[in-house]
Amino acid sequence: MKTLSNIFAEVLSRYGEHVDKKLEDYLSRMCNREFIEVILYQVKTGGKRIRPVMTLLFTEALGEEFTKALPEACVVELIHEYSLIFDDIIDHSVVRRGKPTLWKKFGMNFAILAGLWYREAIEEAILESVNPSLVAKLASETMRDIIEGERLDILLEASGREDPYYLEQRIISRLSRETIDQIYLEMIRKKTAALFKLSCMLGALAARKMIDDYVKAAATYGENVGIAFQLIDDLLDIYGEFEKFGKEIGKDVKEHKLGNAVIVNILKNGKQEDVEKVLEILTKNNISEEDVKTVIEIADKYGSREKVLEEASRYVDLAVKAISMFPESEFKRKLIDIAKFVVYREY
Amino acid sequence: MKTLSNIFAEVLSRYGEHVDKKLEDYLSRMCNREFIEVILYQVKTGGKRIRPVMTLLFTEALGEEFTKALPEACVVELIHEYSLIFDDIIDHSVVRRGKPTLWKKFGMNFAILAGLWYREAIEEAILESVNPSLVAKLASETMRDIIEGERLDILLEASGREDPYYLEQRIISRLSRETIDQIYLEMIRKKTAALFKLSCMLGALAARKMIDDYVKAAATYGENVGIAFQLIDDLLDIYGEFEKFGKEIGKDVKEHKLGNAVIVNILKNGKQEDVEKVLEILTKNNISEEDVKTVIEIADKYGSREKVLEEASRYVDLAVKAISMFPESEFKRKLIDIAKFVVYREY
Repeated sequence: MKTLSNIFAEVLSRYGEHVDKKLEDYLSRMCNREFIEVILYQVKTGGKRIRPVMTLLFTEALGEEFTKALPEACVVELIHEYSLIFDDIIDHSVVRRGKPTLWKKFGMNFAILAGLWYREAIEEAILESVNPSLVAKLASETMRDIIEGERLDILLEASGREDPYYLEQRIISRLSRETIDQIYLEMIRKKTAALFKLSCMLGALAARKMIDDYVKAAATYGENVGIAFQLIDDLLDIYGEFEKFGKEIGKDVKEHKLGNAVIVNILKNGKQEDVEKVLEILTKNNISEEDVKTVIEIADKYGSREKVLEEASRYVDLAVKAISMFPESEFKRKLIDIAKFVVYREY
Repeated sequence: MKTLSNIFAEVLSRYGEHVDKKLEDYLSRMCNREFIEVILYQVKTGGKRIRPVMTLLFTEALGEEFTKALPEACVVELIHEYSLIFDDIIDHSVVRRGKPTLWKKFGMNFAILAGLWYREAIEEAILESVNPSLVAKLASETMRDIIEGERLDILLEASGREDPYYLEQRIISRLSRETIDQIYLEMIRKKTAALFKLSCMLGALAARKMIDDYVKAAATYGENVGIAFQLIDDLLDIYGEFEKFGKEIGKDVKEHKLGNAVIVNILKNGKQEDVEKVLEILTKNNISEEDVKTVIEIADKYGSREKVLEEASRYVDLAVKAISMFPESEFKRKLIDIAKFVVYREY
């Protein structure tokens, strides 16, 4: 029997090499020979390429050759890598995909320059897409969503940054039980779901050439899969799955994040004393393993893990429903499988 | 009698408000109310707006209304501000235009996000230009030139950065008298002149709609003015003009820069003992006022100041010659005056 993970590997083996070759092409254009090692490092550290796979499946699901949408596939993968480079800089992360992050490897100065270079490789890919003006507009809007999502994510940290401006703006100082889940949903819609949405839209758009009901359906699928993806990521960042995903237990707790679905579930539904305990821990300078255990115990008391998992499943159902209008094909079936893979990838 | 500085002020008073209003428009689109203060800070700290002024003069010199090229003018000014935000981050500069730099004011995290936001405001302006695909291509190539120029500028620092990768790559460890002036010229062509070139090209392009001899002439004018501009900037960064330009004496010496025209002049033409003395000083961790004095004395010995000034004048002559084919008009005359203003702005 094929596992969901096998299905994804199968699709990737169909598209992966084509995408990777084109990524290197866009990144290499105009690049000084001396700088190319720095520039290619980020895409060569790996990554699942889940976003470009979705792009190309939508193109094929709408009857076009996937090769036609390779620029679009590269647009979304490059946006992903671009945002990772700067996320790692902002969060001072030293490891990604089991390797040193770009800034850790080549220093902050060259990492920033390489990051900015990625934005121009995105432009190269945009200019080769089927509808460059429309793709430019949609991609640029998505990148602004990602910036705003990252801004909210930072403001949802309870501690750990020292800038006076940040301390004044952060959300913990104006937190309310009524709005926390809305702020959280807005944050993940922008930080994560917007790029999944774009990935699917651009795939459909490469086949349809203008925004129509199929492109809208692809967008709905993408956004819902993206939300589900982030919810599951949040679970992993609390409960950990180090062997499979390189994630340690309680990572988001140690990073003071209110912007995690499990934490939000406690803040929304927990008794006052439990909410206060969690906020007290997240605001500490040094959060211990004992603190992480306490937070997980509180989460367990409210069944937060199961609730988040159920919520993710609901979003996957919405995604699958959105593409029911698509003609039956192996590609449509794979899109359905991949939506499920996103949620069940580790359970 | 009108001074050159008055002439520039006159042109600016004609265009300035239009440009500033449109800059704010592009930057504000999609921007969260809470974030707008951070986003607008950089453009509100001032700046001469010399690049958009050149854009609009070229449009008018070719018989079009300047309002038609406002998106193009904003493209080049936003690229300038975008590069300043990241230059200040990379160089840890705390003051610009007499005010705290963006990162100093709002912290590193929000400064990076704001910088990335500028790139998307550039995209907004590109999409409203007369020929979006061509402008997107030219602008993106220019931004890669700027990144490469900044990379070379960093590698031309003799000391002051600690990353192992940087230490291995820096140019001082493979310096040669034969190539230093070529590397320097390549660096300023990319770091500075490329954007002046784009500014002038886009202005001409808004009137001509495609690349023709007028657009090429505008490009030649822009590139040569840009080189002259950087040479004069280098003089100011050694000899200082604090009252007029907020620049301290010996700034580039204190920042360990080999990539300054005055230093390059010594490295190219100086006796071995003087070259060694200058390299010894530039490689020191802490460079004293006495050290700065020594470098300036060595420069004086070779007449470096005058030589750089003469060189700048030659580039201005090339710029003026390039647009001799343009029909006579007040705008053409202003472009000639501005080219001269660039060199004589402080003499």
